Amino acid sequence: MQTYRFDKVDITSGYLFGKQELNRKTTINAVYDRFYETGRIGAFDFDYVPAEDRKPPHVYWDSDVAKWMEGAAYILKKYPTPELEEKVDALVERIKANQCEDGYFNIHFTVVAPEDRFKYREKHELYCAGHLMEAAVAYDEATGKRDFLTCMEKYADHIARVFIEEKSAVFQTPGHEEIEIALVRMYLHTGKKKYLDMAKFFIDARGSSETSERKDPQIQSHKPVREQTEAVGHSVRAMYLYTAMAYLAAETDDEELKNACRALWDDVTLRKMYVTGGVGSTYIGEAFTKPYDLPNDGAYTETCAGIGLMFFANAMLALENDAKYADIIERVLYNGVLSGLSLDGISFFYENPLEINLLEHFENERGKRKFPITQRVECFSCSCCPPNLNRLLPSLGNYIYGTDGGTLYVNQFVSSKLEDGGVVCKVTTDYPVSGSIRIEAQGAEKLAIRIPEWCGKFEIDREYAIEKGYAVIENDGESVNISFDMTPKTVYADPRVLRDCSRLCVMRGPIVYCAEGVDNGENLHAYSVPCDFECAEKECAEFGLPILEVTASRLLPFEGGLYSSRRPEKVSATLKMIPYNCFANRGETDMIVWLHAE
Amino acid sequence: MQTYRFDKVDITSGYLFGKQELNRKTTINAVYDRFYETGRIGAFDFDYVPAEDRKPPHVYWDSDVAKWMEGAAYILKKYPTPELEEKVDALVERIKANQCEDGYFNIHFTVVAPEDRFKYREKHELYCAGHLMEAAVAYDEATGKRDFLTCMEKYADHIARVFIEEKSAVFQTPGHEEIEIALVRMYLHTGKKKYLDMAKFFIDARGSSETSERKDPQIQSHKPVREQTEAVGHSVRAMYLYTAMAYLAAETDDEELKNACRALWDDVTLRKMYVTGGVGSTYIGEAFTKPYDLPNDGAYTETCAGIGLMFFANAMLALENDAKYADIIERVLYNGVLSGLSLDGISFFYENPLEINLLEHFENERGKRKFPITQRVECFSCSCCPPNLNRLLPSLGNYIYGTDGGTLYVNQFVSSKLEDGGVVCKVTTDYPVSGSIRIEAQGAEKLAIRIPEWCGKFEIDREYAIEKGYAVIENDGESVNISFDMTPKTVYADPRVLRDCSRLCVMRGPIVYCAEGVDNGENLHAYSVPCDFECAEKECAEFGLPILEVTASRLLPFEGGLYSSRRPEKVSATLKMIPYNCFANRGETDMIVWLHAE
Repeated sequence: MQTYRFDKVDITSGYLFGKQELNRKTTINAVYDRFYETGRIGAFDFDYVPAEDRKPPHVYWDSDVAKWMEGAAYILKKYPTPELEEKVDALVERIKANQCEDGYFNIHFTVVAPEDRFKYREKHELYCAGHLMEAAVAYDEATGKRDFLTCMEKYADHIARVFIEEKSAVFQTPGHEEIEIALVRMYLHTGKKKYLDMAKFFIDARGSSETSERKDPQIQSHKPVREQTEAVGHSVRAMYLYTAMAYLAAETDDEELKNACRALWDDVTLRKMYVTGGVGSTYIGEAFTKPYDLPNDGAYTETCAGIGLMFFANAMLALENDAKYADIIERVLYNGVLSGLSLDGISFFYENPLEINLLEHFENERGKRKFPITQRVECFSCSCCPPNLNRLLPSLGNYIYGTDGGTLYVNQFVSSKLEDGGVVCKVTTDYPVSGSIRIEAQGAEKLAIRIPEWCGKFEIDREYAIEKGYAVIENDGESVNISFDMTPKTVYADPRVLRDCSRLCVMRGPIVYCAEGVDNGENLHAYSVPCDFECAEKECAEFGLPILEVTASRLLPFEGGLYSSRRPEKVSATLKMIPYNCFANRGETDMIVWLHAE
Repeated sequence: MQTYRFDKVDITSGYLFGKQELNRKTTINAVYDRFYETGRIGAFDFDYVPAEDRKPPHVYWDSDVAKWMEGAAYILKKYPTPELEEKVDALVERIKANQCEDGYFNIHFTVVAPEDRFKYREKHELYCAGHLMEAAVAYDEATGKRDFLTCMEKYADHIARVFIEEKSAVFQTPGHEEIEIALVRMYLHTGKKKYLDMAKFFIDARGSSETSERKDPQIQSHKPVREQTEAVGHSVRAMYLYTAMAYLAAETDDEELKNACRALWDDVTLRKMYVTGGVGSTYIGEAFTKPYDLPNDGAYTETCAGIGLMFFANAMLALENDAKYADIIERVLYNGVLSGLSLDGISFFYENPLEINLLEHFENERGKRKFPITQRVECFSCSCCPPNLNRLLPSLGNYIYGTDGGTLYVNQFVSSKLEDGGVVCKVTTDYPVSGSIRIEAQGAEKLAIRIPEWCGKFEIDREYAIEKGYAVIENDGESVNISFDMTPKTVYADPRVLRDCSRLCVMRGPIVYCAEGVDNGENLHAYSVPCDFECAEKECAEFGLPILEVTASRLLPFEGGLYSSRRPEKVSATLKMIPYNCFANRGETDMIVWLHAE
């Protein structure tokens, strides 16, 4: 299918609308302010000189700010906001003023280490370039101001010269993928095929025996991409590469590349993905590990990797017209991505663990035992996740609708309006608070409505046929009513996930729930939940989603020694559960997703 | 009670006799050979000069060899072994030849860094001195050759001068306790009270506001020892300190010190001890952490800390006449200490984890996720545990009998003979293979036979009264027959130990059992065991203890995706369990002690 871009789609109310508004009114400014305070914005003045009180611009900084600019552009596309536009314009002015004659643009490698230009594969130059290009495309689309894009076209041409024509760079493919995505977007926006060729060059060269580069699984260059079947290495890099591969496969109709994408998709989602949609099981290299290795307390699951999985999934959805891709978008968005943002919109998780046991957070001067932080922070030294949320949230419209032939696809359930020429579709729902959805569409012969994989029971007031996870109906222009059963239910993991054996997870619709110490006391492992638990739902304005009160048992502490042949006594208890994406918003406390099953 | 020293006790057959023989015939020589190959033995020549192919003698090395010498002395006390005696004599010769004029003896601080003598609290000088003193006492006791002891008396006098009279050392108390134990032993052996006074000096000065030293919980110097109630810091250091405190309290009848020992004992055994008797929950600082923090796969539980807990327990047993101390000796000896030695007697664990999941042993060039090693090795760079086993095993006789008034205590059940003047006691048993024990004693009015805390059912063919965990009977000189029920049973942990919630452990008598991947397949977490499991016992010559076949269930892997609302299918299975102390003797494989409970 052709998925509709967010510019054709207005999200009008409901849960995700709330998140968009939070970003537009708070998060986008909070991230800018932190970037200003930390010198990231000022760095665009290119006036850095070594001094005791100045931090040298870091190799990541261009990309942090570029993602913020891209997010600002998406907001500007829908909401004229002069103060925001001025901030972007000021940055674009500095970019214009400080771009090198030859087109090169990078703060660190101009003001700190000009002698190191294109020398170190691991130093994020092409990654920064890619994010700047994406931002430039977005800003041109949003405002029609072409200066930024002109700069980035010039930079892209310089990169083509150095990497493809002259081959004068010390490395051939980037250590952190991103530019491949950006170049496809440059091509789609400008229509200039040279950018698609560049994307293809970087993708084809990766891991190829024709390059002398180190074959490194950490950066997915251990073999040619078409031969890759297992998700390996740095999880964000992997997601960006796979997304670019799927984009390129769509544009070039490259069946071999599509097959690699399918195999990688399966490996990620059938063997290496948390129930929250998070990916990346270890902070060591921020990486994928082995199939079924999904530790909960040590989960890495970077917010950016979740966002990357959404990109990859949307690209695969476009290729395959299969609802399973939209299912994963829903899973990761509502759980492992939104958990990255605090309810007040100003603090962020980089990692999104599925369990916190403060008892085990031992630290002394010799080291620290547990790594995932337990509280969101306002800025990281490598602050990639906050501006990634800035660009994701205003562009959520990208994930809702698609079209193929005369069929209009409804992939996500969001109160929204699609308008594209003669095609108009209006969805009204408070999903995922309830499971009731009304759809009215004009200009489409058929409607394909995703039936979420989590949903065991649903009703549609039309005749339908199920095709690749969609309920397909003839469209008569009248409103269609769908109702998904949102009764909270028990979810189990494949027993090969050893940490989830004898455990269960509670989901309500697409929302994964967790229990926190602040509600339930110190040791959440003392609770066990019957598989057929009963459950009361309570509205919760703070979370925007209901909280659950689940029937459970709780083990009582021993009174004598540590070990006994008498089984610990169990008492009835009620376990208060909140949406996982809301965890850690009420102070530092224990948290658990995978509960002990009775 | 007065516990009998091993020189009065011959272990004659059975499981522990086998371990003694393994040590005498194999381990003592294997450790010597590794110490020879690594330069530890040669270092006593004091001929080190910096050269590319020579490692400088490490600050630990004196203590590694000293513990080996102490172990050799214990063997020589019972078994004349000329080759072994020659090796010790040769070392003693080098010690005599190379001791400084003023009595100082330390290889590293003579040949590598003479300018640093007694400057760095953390550099193990007094720790090495203590181990040399213990070895010297043992060697004098074993052979009557006094030279070594004479050297060490001279060294002790030098230490008294520097630390107590002149106060010219840069620090006041050692960073690693040990010399306190050694000085009490020097006092007990020589009768010279000055050594007891020295021990008291170092114990009293520790954490005292009268010293300017850093108050550091890692080395138990955060407060005066009499005010300490919580086990903190490095677990081996803690055990050695608490042992010395209990020794000193006994000799000086210091009630305040006894109370501190009681509080520390309770904190260790009621809140911070694994079911194997292992102590120390993190490799970070090799340390104690918080109460109930007992992770299984990340357990630190150094073999030396287990041995230290035996020392501490035996000292407390002497003070308190309470079987609970002998219970812990049994627990840690049979489980967390013997696990440190391979069945072939030549390889060693430093850490003794309670769970191994190879799936989670992820490693890339950026780091390693799991730290406890999964296979024993022949020598460590800090190889303290192997010679600690060398000295423990031949002196196991220290833990079996005690006397108080006319009562003879039988603390451990080992085929053995005690002879001390008119007191003779013969114990015949194959414990812990079976629970049948025959005791014949002369020269004692009463017999106090420990009823192990793990034992729910026992028979004695006499009338008895239970006192502090002992069955006390009038002794008529005829054989007494005791039978402990050895039926394997389920043990639970206090639910505050979060990692053991919903888990159970299988014990047979004092032996903790585990399941290994090599017997049961890859994912041991897929098994669950009913609390009232049935069990077949099979003899196993290799392990010297029966193996168990336990009724269990096993979860089957999913066939579709990772997550499902359908509960994983369960099939009946038999779980083969082996004694925990035998784990990792058949290649690298998964292992689990705390099984999922049904």
